[in-house]
Amino acid sequence: MLTRTLTSSFRRQFSSSSIAYNRALVYSRNGSPSEVLSAITYPDLPPPPPNTVNIRFILSAINPADINTIEGVYPSKPTLTSNINSTGPGSDEQPVFVAGNEGLAQIDQIGDGVEGFKQNDWVVMDKSQVGTWSTCRNVSAKDVIRLPLKDSDGLTAPHGATMTVNPTTAFNMLREFVDLKEGDWVVQNGANSAVGKLVIQIAKLRGLNTLNLVRARDNFAEFAKSLEDLGATKVLTYDDLKDKAVRGKIQEWTSGKPLLLALNCIGGDATTSMVKLLSNGAHLVSYGAMSKQPISLPTSLFIFKDLMTHGFWQTRWSKTHSREEKEELIGKLAGWMSRGQLQAPEHEIITLGKNETDEEVSQRVRGIFSDMAEGKYKKKVLLKLEDKA
Amino acid sequence: MLTRTLTSSFRRQFSSSSIAYNRALVYSRNGSPSEVLSAITYPDLPPPPPNTVNIRFILSAINPADINTIEGVYPSKPTLTSNINSTGPGSDEQPVFVAGNEGLAQIDQIGDGVEGFKQNDWVVMDKSQVGTWSTCRNVSAKDVIRLPLKDSDGLTAPHGATMTVNPTTAFNMLREFVDLKEGDWVVQNGANSAVGKLVIQIAKLRGLNTLNLVRARDNFAEFAKSLEDLGATKVLTYDDLKDKAVRGKIQEWTSGKPLLLALNCIGGDATTSMVKLLSNGAHLVSYGAMSKQPISLPTSLFIFKDLMTHGFWQTRWSKTHSREEKEELIGKLAGWMSRGQLQAPEHEIITLGKNETDEEVSQRVRGIFSDMAEGKYKKKVLLKLEDKA
Repeated sequence: MLTRTLTSSFRRQFSSSSIAYNRALVYSRNGSPSEVLSAITYPDLPPPPPNTVNIRFILSAINPADINTIEGVYPSKPTLTSNINSTGPGSDEQPVFVAGNEGLAQIDQIGDGVEGFKQNDWVVMDKSQVGTWSTCRNVSAKDVIRLPLKDSDGLTAPHGATMTVNPTTAFNMLREFVDLKEGDWVVQNGANSAVGKLVIQIAKLRGLNTLNLVRARDNFAEFAKSLEDLGATKVLTYDDLKDKAVRGKIQEWTSGKPLLLALNCIGGDATTSMVKLLSNGAHLVSYGAMSKQPISLPTSLFIFKDLMTHGFWQTRWSKTHSREEKEELIGKLAGWMSRGQLQAPEHEIITLGKNETDEEVSQRVRGIFSDMAEGKYKKKVLLKLEDKA
Repeated sequence: MLTRTLTSSFRRQFSSSSIAYNRALVYSRNGSPSEVLSAITYPDLPPPPPNTVNIRFILSAINPADINTIEGVYPSKPTLTSNINSTGPGSDEQPVFVAGNEGLAQIDQIGDGVEGFKQNDWVVMDKSQVGTWSTCRNVSAKDVIRLPLKDSDGLTAPHGATMTVNPTTAFNMLREFVDLKEGDWVVQNGANSAVGKLVIQIAKLRGLNTLNLVRARDNFAEFAKSLEDLGATKVLTYDDLKDKAVRGKIQEWTSGKPLLLALNCIGGDATTSMVKLLSNGAHLVSYGAMSKQPISLPTSLFIFKDLMTHGFWQTRWSKTHSREEKEELIGKLAGWMSRGQLQAPEHEIITLGKNETDEEVSQRVRGIFSDMAEGKYKKKVLLKLEDKA
């Protein structure tokens, strides 16, 4: 197999020239992560060139988009890394993609001309597809953002490792489309998704009310209670919306305040029925399509109710906003997290141990993705890649 | 029948008190125009109260939305007119709706405090549902806009009578969503609709290129030629879009310029396939739904291609823009029309003659709407209500 050959080629290359301590999960062709991902070992990074930093990953997140990226079906493409152990001119290594987009790292070494970082600072990625499923990387200083807080301030590593995708998405969707004031209402479907739960918490922190839509389930009251404990104002099922009387109930809850923002991660009927609750001049913002159904809306809502629809993609937001704006956002989120006002997602940390061989790690990682595809992981999976012994 | 009784009641009322010269098409309950419309006769208007003007209609348009309004299914509702012959306190007349939203009138008499109008000035309606299917009305001076040009300037009555709905829609859709510069491209479906043809002409006048989508038909080359003669840059059928190679052709035509604005009056597949041609960050603006199919779009277009969708409704634009903006727009359109740069729609003028009785006119008008529902009128119908003998 290509990936095995590749792995061997890497190991041979480095075993002759330096002692291999580090590990990365890489792929050289697109496909299912359970087939194309391999662990490789590489030596310690050389000192960072000017304007770059060497970072060591503390914890790295696996997000659904990572799977699409490896499959090659995600619009944000990683760049081939021809020389994982240096940013210098290419060697004769066979180039690979280092997987992983989100993660928490700490500053290890600082290149000339870099300001604003000191050793052991916690950082998160500003650039997409940095290759966070690795023990260490050399990156441009402008591609990472320093966290103003760390573990000693009450910020946990799982918080830090899951900060740049979902919490930023939730925060920005509540800010970028409608100028919401304290007491205003927002409606969302997929309210129990990772982002949905963050929307609930951030809305609550801002004094906003949330109307949360979820699938019907047996233990609904208990389930709704768990979202209310998180800060949800009201929870309804999609089926509830079929009852015309529920509109009156919603108007009562909102005291007739307009409903101007709907957040959508489902598509299909769960979106159409939500949009019908909206007031004139409202915005539908989509960030996911769990049902794999298109968004289907009567034209009259656009013409006569002035509905506007948008998508939100944090990757685009990041590319179109200044470093100051991003630092401010990260700082705000880190503050809430450190004070326990924003929960880290339920998660499971998988350690890829220093005593495992690359072959063993490759097998285990492929198994993890295979299980994940079968829905065996209900929690967010965080990878801890130990330095290799 | 209610409407017959009503008509008789009107005629009785006025026959005893004044001579009836004027006529209006009215209804007192919602339903098909071919069933609920009646002609009634009413006396000359009293002199206009302060801040109002008496206007006499020259020509009045029948638009598809008028039918929906009479049916009661249009969001813009007319107000009941309890006393068609005066704006003074109500009489004991049974209130009616006077039909008609668009039309060209001339100023007949001017009330105290009204500035900016003189007798015989041509005016168009600024307010919705003024009741233009009548010979004369008393209206607030702020509800009409003076045309800076008239027949002696080369502006025709059909131009004036069809100015405030379709040309304004076409003009505003090309201006309000994307800042288009000379040489930029716009794509539209239903390109041979009344608005579509105006989009073609106005785009041409602004130096914009149009990619026009229409249904396949036998005489396509000839048909495409007719749109090109109007100013269309390119014409394709919806079926053409199924051929992947057509994308390359379009890119060649546009020289790779981004396609940032799509205008939609169809819905369903004709919208989905059009939207797939758009560049990142584009806007889909809907103003009609001829297919009666919803707008159905993959969520990925919103998230990853930053697609934004809106509706356009001239009635809303009118309510949210200043008198100065409206006068400027009307002035610009009238100028183009008077110079023959913007064609009046193909039309048929139906005269409701002075020697016909109300019963005869009622029957004829109902027949017209009945024929219209069967698609017997291919042209825009303009009503000329003669003063009754």
